[in-house]
Amino acid sequence: MINVVGIGPGDLEMMTFKAKSALEESDVIVGYKTYTNLIMPIIKDKEIVSNGMKQEVQRCEEAIRIAKTGKIVSVVSSGDAGVYGMAGLILELLNGDDMKVNIIPGVTASTAASAILGAPLMHDYCHISLSDLLTPMELIEKRIAMASEGDFVICLYNPRSKGREGHLEKAIEIIKKHRKIDTPLGIVKNAAREKEEKIITTIGEIDYTVVDMTSIVIIGNSSTYVENNNMITPRGYKV
Amino acid sequence: MINVVGIGPGDLEMMTFKAKSALEESDVIVGYKTYTNLIMPIIKDKEIVSNGMKQEVQRCEEAIRIAKTGKIVSVVSSGDAGVYGMAGLILELLNGDDMKVNIIPGVTASTAASAILGAPLMHDYCHISLSDLLTPMELIEKRIAMASEGDFVICLYNPRSKGREGHLEKAIEIIKKHRKIDTPLGIVKNAAREKEEKIITTIGEIDYTVVDMTSIVIIGNSSTYVENNNMITPRGYKV
Ligand SMILES: C[S@@+](CC[C@H](N)C(=O)[O-])C[C@H]1O[C@@H](n2cnc3c(N)ncnc32)[C@H](O)[C@@H]1O
Ligand SMILES: C[S@@+](CC[C@H](N)C(=O)[O-])C[C@H]1O[C@@H](n2cnc3c(N)ncnc32)[C@H](O)[C@@H]1O
Repeated sequence: MINVVGIGPGDLEMMTFKAKSALEESDVIVGYKTYTNLIMPIIKDKEIVSNGMKQEVQRCEEAIRIAKTGKIVSVVSSGDAGVYGMAGLILELLNGDDMKVNIIPGVTASTAASAILGAPLMHDYCHISLSDLLTPMELIEKRIAMASEGDFVICLYNPRSKGREGHLEKAIEIIKKHRKIDTPLGIVKNAAREKEEKIITTIGEIDYTVVDMTSIVIIGNSSTYVENNNMITPRGYKV
Repeated sequence: MINVVGIGPGDLEMMTFKAKSALEESDVIVGYKTYTNLIMPIIKDKEIVSNGMKQEVQRCEEAIRIAKTGKIVSVVSSGDAGVYGMAGLILELLNGDDMKVNIIPGVTASTAASAILGAPLMHDYCHISLSDLLTPMELIEKRIAMASEGDFVICLYNPRSKGREGHLEKAIEIIKKHRKIDTPLGIVKNAAREKEEKIITTIGEIDYTVVDMTSIVIIGNSSTYVENNNMITPRGYKV
């Protein structure tokens, strides 16, 4: 049996009860080292299989191999396992094989960050990953353009990492064509982890160098405003 | 002090530890009756202020009034409190007032439903609410068009309710202009609640009458496929 477990943004308090039970019932935990470290207090007595980043396929293949021996295996993702996580890959690799798979959702980075920033996600929003490792840059740019034109609040996952320094600049450039220069932009680094950081600025004044791969960037829609260091997108109630 | 608490989709196991602690530390719980009922085992000894739907503003005003007397008040939303929930309204109504507000995120309906459907949200996606109570229908339609054109996976919140029977039909009509007629479409009714139901169909064959306001509808992108009754959107790994 395989559990694909979303452990939430980091803090163990932000995990669901169901995720914790799934980890506890497991014989083996498979996941990227940063994530297995986050949950170490829960899994310290388990067999742990972890390796570095960019080894997602091997990691999931290994999890399936172990589960086929009859063990209960939990594959862990940060946030929600189905949001740029391991859930899809496990199902793809099983390729119709007869194996029990439980997917256990979690609090994804966008809503964890939203709670820290205030309430930027109160109206229609989208998630776009700026990583072009698996997606052509043209499609990413097209999505940014469509989301901007549709006045969606925009959450950028994987906003910046070594070798992809220019993507966020490019994204903001596209957004600027559709939104005012003082549109609020929130950055949360390490949401619900040590060294959590919150920055509220605008698309005109963002300092790109503070953004890294442990950050998520949220760009407001045309109604989003800032008050008391909170970023708020009104839903439309008369208040 | 006000806690704005996302209680998750329904099942108490899908709540975070932090949400449960926030409820436990509260003197008063404010929320729509369906939600306070879902969490009754946790709050049965508390003062509970609940009323019907469409009374969001009064409910939040009441919560603020009680909090100003010095009590700890938790305002509850299903799912995540910042996703079409109460977080924004509380901040809007406080209007800069000096009051401690803790926003506690939760598992939102889209990712809860995704885990039930398989892994439809593995690539860029958006949330669109089909309720035109607070948003003009033209803007909703524009967003559907932009999301379709950008090949986003689309999650429709508030897909259908009495008086808004035609909105979902209209939405699917727009999506059909951009996607193949056999594009997978998933419906989850009552995710993580009693009477949970999962339906996987296509944009060409959807039976609109099964959808109600306790449902969420997820439409795949151009790569989404169905295997073993799972809806899967590939991330792009070579498998
Ligand atoms: C491969 S994705 C995984 C997303 C994860 N499955 C989720 O649902 O949050 C990694 C990206 O998620 C975002 N992220 C994940 N955890 C975060 C956190 N605690 N704080 C800020 N951003 C985070 C960052 O943008 C990061 O580059
Ligand atoms: C006003 S919105 C509240 C959303 C909530 N704050 C969240 O994050 O999930 C209500 C809509 O959310 C969706 N929804 C909420 N809970 C659900 C559940 N358990 N199963 C299916 N859909 C749900 C439905 O589309 C419903 O019409």
